[in-house]
Amino acid sequence: MSEPAIGIVTVSDRASRGVYRDLGGPAVVAELTRMLCVPWRPECRLVPDEQPLIEAVLRDLADGVGCGLIITTGGTGPAPRDVTPEATVAVCDRMMPGFGEAMRAVSLRSVPTASLSRQTAGIRGRSLIINLPGKPAAIAECLGAVFPAVPYCLDLIGGPRLETDEAVIRVFRPKSLASP
Amino acid sequence: MSEPAIGIVTVSDRASRGVYRDLGGPAVVAELTRMLCVPWRPECRLVPDEQPLIEAVLRDLADGVGCGLIITTGGTGPAPRDVTPEATVAVCDRMMPGFGEAMRAVSLRSVPTASLSRQTAGIRGRSLIINLPGKPAAIAECLGAVFPAVPYCLDLIGGPRLETDEAVIRVFRPKSLASP
Amino acid sequence: MSEPAIGIVTVSDRASRGVYRDLGGPAVVAELTRMLCVPWRPECRLVPDEQPLIEAVLRDLADGVGCGLIITTGGTGPAPRDVTPEATVAVCDRMMPGFGEAMRAVSLRSVPTASLSRQTAGIRGRSLIINLPGKPAAIAECLGAVFPAVPYCLDLIGGPRLETDEAVIRVFRPKSLASP
Repeated sequence: MSEPAIGIVTVSDRASRGVYRDLGGPAVVAELTRMLCVPWRPECRLVPDEQPLIEAVLRDLADGVGCGLIITTGGTGPAPRDVTPEATVAVCDRMMPGFGEAMRAVSLRSVPTASLSRQTAGIRGRSLIINLPGKPAAIAECLGAVFPAVPYCLDLIGGPRLETDEAVIRVFRPKSLASP
Repeated sequence: MSEPAIGIVTVSDRASRGVYRDLGGPAVVAELTRMLCVPWRPECRLVPDEQPLIEAVLRDLADGVGCGLIITTGGTGPAPRDVTPEATVAVCDRMMPGFGEAMRAVSLRSVPTASLSRQTAGIRGRSLIINLPGKPAAIAECLGAVFPAVPYCLDLIGGPRLETDEAVIRVFRPKSLASP
Repeated sequence: MSEPAIGIVTVSDRASRGVYRDLGGPAVVAELTRMLCVPWRPECRLVPDEQPLIEAVLRDLADGVGCGLIITTGGTGPAPRDVTPEATVAVCDRMMPGFGEAMRAVSLRSVPTASLSRQTAGIRGRSLIINLPGKPAAIAECLGAVFPAVPYCLDLIGGPRLETDEAVIRVFRPKSLASP
């Protein structure tokens, strides 16, 4: 199987207990399906808001499954149980502050509570990990804000080559592979 | 006394020595008075730019007085004596990067030196701590940029319920209390 | 010699091996020459993407040469060899998050991959260190975004007084020297 795996991690106490259906994970899968025009396969996980469990899932998807891109949804707010950013920082070698900034700036045009999101992004080895909010509407908005830079980022860290449907979203790859 | 206490901390060597009058603290009180339509009481403090003293005041207002919201003014610039952000980071359990970003982005439309502000925000237990600049004009601008998200943030961390005068500022509370 | 020295550090494996010509350093010199109307002298360095070497150069320019302003170019991307931000954090006493935010926000209007830049800025003693990207076009854009605040920042940290050609770029100095 040569198609790249993309990790999609829903972080939610309630969804993981079956109290309600996971809407975030399927929304990420749907959005990626709409954008990507290369074969890929989703590796979906559902975890409660427990930092050690989230970290274990992220490590396994990066190092075990070999996902070049891992997207989390949920657990980025200010509530005491929201620990997805902390788990992300804990497993990453280096952080990418521009992702959280760009996503909050775009969301802020829709809702003033976008400032409450602590979502971040970082790199673990050859994997880019991006936190998205839990709400489906915010997921599409945030992915749209940063995805044009994701394929080039994966090129630079040795991840899989992603191509998108240009009618949906146009990615940007500088001509040279010199790093920005 | 059931009205919530809001901590207002002026950080200034000169104002605390009486060299000049504290303008920042009263400007925060005036702005909150203009915005809020629920009973509340200000708990005002005035401290010099000494990190241990600022930390002690923040801890006391959060844990002792039980302020769900604490606003500092002053000490956020690049000068060697400016240590309010460091004191804030030291007492918080988790940081809220979106507050500093949003306040700098708004201030940047007025003055290019907004980039010099190192103001941040974070959560200590059930208290939200927000740094504001020292200048009265910048105080109103920065509070206006983030206050629409503050009441919902306090809801999520177990703080007091704040309501605003919608003719002055409209707060945003998503319908569900699910965290962003 | 009383003119202030400005450190200009090109961080690039390839340029330092002579594989290609350093374009970033000369672009920074050209841009500063265009903006400044006071005498100054460039102190140029060229280092490979090795964190200890970059740190050593930054420390020498700040503490040895006494540069009040040090500008790096290159090494801010997500590639494994890009470590300029890490070196900058390691040598600084305090970080200036508003610089990276403002530069990414401006660059994002030109290229979506601006989000990939991890560039930051910080203060070491009396020296302000600013990371710029490696590409000449991005250098002018980023410098233009933050330079209006740089002279006032140097005033506040005890650095040299810089004046600019107002026809090229207008700097902003609040009337009082009270810190923001």
